[in-house]
Amino acid sequence: MEPRSRGAAPGGVSVSAVLPAGGSGERLGGATPKQFCAVQGRPLVSYAVRAMERISWISDIVVVVSPENIETMKTIIEKYGHKRVTVVEGGITRHRSIFNGLKVFAENEFSSHLLQKPEVVIIHDAVRPFVEEDTVSKVVMAAKEHGAAGAIRPLVSTVIASAADGCLDHSLERARYRASEMPQAFLFDVIYEAYQQCTDYDLDYGTECLHLALKYCKTNAKLVEGTPDLWKVTYKRDLYAAESIIKDNLSQQVCVITNVKETLAQVGFLLPESLKSQIKVEVTSISLSKNDRCLQNIISGQCYNFVCVNDKRWAIQETQELVDMLEKSNIPLLYPVVLILVHLDIPEKNSFSIGMEDLTMIKKFARETKKKNILVYGLLIQYK
Amino acid sequence: MEPRSRGAAPGGVSVSAVLPAGGSGERLGGATPKQFCAVQGRPLVSYAVRAMERISWISDIVVVVSPENIETMKTIIEKYGHKRVTVVEGGITRHRSIFNGLKVFAENEFSSHLLQKPEVVIIHDAVRPFVEEDTVSKVVMAAKEHGAAGAIRPLVSTVIASAADGCLDHSLERARYRASEMPQAFLFDVIYEAYQQCTDYDLDYGTECLHLALKYCKTNAKLVEGTPDLWKVTYKRDLYAAESIIKDNLSQQVCVITNVKETLAQVGFLLPESLKSQIKVEVTSISLSKNDRCLQNIISGQCYNFVCVNDKRWAIQETQELVDMLEKSNIPLLYPVVLILVHLDIPEKNSFSIGMEDLTMIKKFARETKKKNILVYGLLIQYK
Repeated sequence: MEPRSRGAAPGGVSVSAVLPAGGSGERLGGATPKQFCAVQGRPLVSYAVRAMERISWISDIVVVVSPENIETMKTIIEKYGHKRVTVVEGGITRHRSIFNGLKVFAENEFSSHLLQKPEVVIIHDAVRPFVEEDTVSKVVMAAKEHGAAGAIRPLVSTVIASAADGCLDHSLERARYRASEMPQAFLFDVIYEAYQQCTDYDLDYGTECLHLALKYCKTNAKLVEGTPDLWKVTYKRDLYAAESIIKDNLSQQVCVITNVKETLAQVGFLLPESLKSQIKVEVTSISLSKNDRCLQNIISGQCYNFVCVNDKRWAIQETQELVDMLEKSNIPLLYPVVLILVHLDIPEKNSFSIGMEDLTMIKKFARETKKKNILVYGLLIQYK
Repeated sequence: MEPRSRGAAPGGVSVSAVLPAGGSGERLGGATPKQFCAVQGRPLVSYAVRAMERISWISDIVVVVSPENIETMKTIIEKYGHKRVTVVEGGITRHRSIFNGLKVFAENEFSSHLLQKPEVVIIHDAVRPFVEEDTVSKVVMAAKEHGAAGAIRPLVSTVIASAADGCLDHSLERARYRASEMPQAFLFDVIYEAYQQCTDYDLDYGTECLHLALKYCKTNAKLVEGTPDLWKVTYKRDLYAAESIIKDNLSQQVCVITNVKETLAQVGFLLPESLKSQIKVEVTSISLSKNDRCLQNIISGQCYNFVCVNDKRWAIQETQELVDMLEKSNIPLLYPVVLILVHLDIPEKNSFSIGMEDLTMIKKFARETKKKNILVYGLLIQYK
């Protein structure tokens, strides 16, 4: 298989990711493992995959799930249009699952999947949906330099050791200790070697990959201070928190749709420039043609704000198609969708004016879509 | 001051509580310290105070706040009608604040406040709003027996020690360690002695009260497994989670209002019996008279469901007063309030029937209140 051409990774290394998603979610108190719990209608694992997928320099994303969830995972990948993802069957513990994920890059027994071995491999949890590129990049660079690296966070509670009688043995000095979080990254050969060397006891009872690298490869792990949003969805309250954060993010996200190339560049530059501090703008150069896969993905990513830029009089047909797609997605059932139609009147090109007739038509159109909880606004910009 | 007569504490001991609420909330990333952040319009500290206040065998609740927040705290106590609360000025660290809180039970310098010294003192955080009586009771009983006790939870993340170079030194074996949470409880003399003995270094850099009891009084603390809802509101996501949990709880809470004594007992018994698994019923024997402080408290506690039980024809005047109180509270602005008017027709007493005229009046009344987002339903129960 040929290595894919992508954005440059930090330090120019080749990078892939393994996401263990085999947990049973006991602590959540529900029947569904937490990585498959829906947050805003979309399974948590899909957010984590998307977080990796958005980083252009990650070549392959290996998701490791328990045998009974392989089909579920494949359906999720299909439904949300995830790319560069390989699904692998996990083992009975977290370490065994990660090891299986790594084998896909190295062993012939998984030959039907065999992926290009990366220089650095990221290990991230399926239940940490909010990791940012900046953090992943720092961890990868540290791994490239030190052989292993992991994100850490300060401890929230004091950690204590309990004695056999259920009483306090001693409490740890908080400043010296940290919570080990994800993502972690390793030189592929280091972590793979560690897994090959380690004992069954490690595979069955261990929790810490950094520890394995240190124990079996004498590779000291660099600890990288992470952001608060790296936390792991563990309890029901974490699902509530994730939902609120996702809602917050959604309301701050705008998708700009246009097939006017020069305009795109301008709008794509001006919008983020003027709204930078308040909003996250995702500019997408797509036409409103039927079955556009890219647009489908954005809609299933639950974007609630759209700006359509046109240099034609009024693309009613195309707008109608977008409204139909939005309606089918059920998104307007949950929240109002805002659709701003921007008409660019550029004199050098085919100039036009919008008359009373157009206005009436737009108003009528907007009244109809409002009933479907889709709020349409028109904006005419004249270039002098 | 005379000791108050209250419900029996576990083991028959006298119990009071100290709530340190002096933190600055740096980790939350906002200007407002987290204990004063509003969740569903009410400051977090008020939920924690209420959790303590609902436990009838806790005599006094001492809230320790930083000097600049004393007035804010007093306003909160006034607004939400908190009882048995004394506000005390805190020190510059958590330990110094707790020590100040304890002094109110023991020293003359705080003589204007001096409270009855309890046998056991609970220490709980202002930012842990969801503690249940059962957990508090277990911790108090363990403290009575062992001298000190604290709630613990399993670790969510692996804890690691970092070396001076920012690399991994070692990771802790997760099974041996626990997160130390709140509430904790102590024989008053043990923890007070520990604070009197301990060094300035302990007061300034220590975090663990259990540790002080062990170090200075050789009192081993019993560790009590707590519930997941004991967690500490630390980050913004925790505020989101708290809000969702409070909303969930609210929708499952019913206040029964009646001045029909016998009926109260029956309804109070039957409602929880039949709805036990789905709803939390708070039965309150109060009349719908003007300025009823108790009812005001329930309303400011943001209850959204009310059942009014009457054995009179129709207490329109009293119902109107309740509707007025609800309207003034702004609660119906956020969520619909449900008000079920139950009319008991008990033959032995003054029997009555509801005719067309009454029905029309009730319907008209309900139509009016519906505009205010207060949904009134009538229910006639005839006893044979």
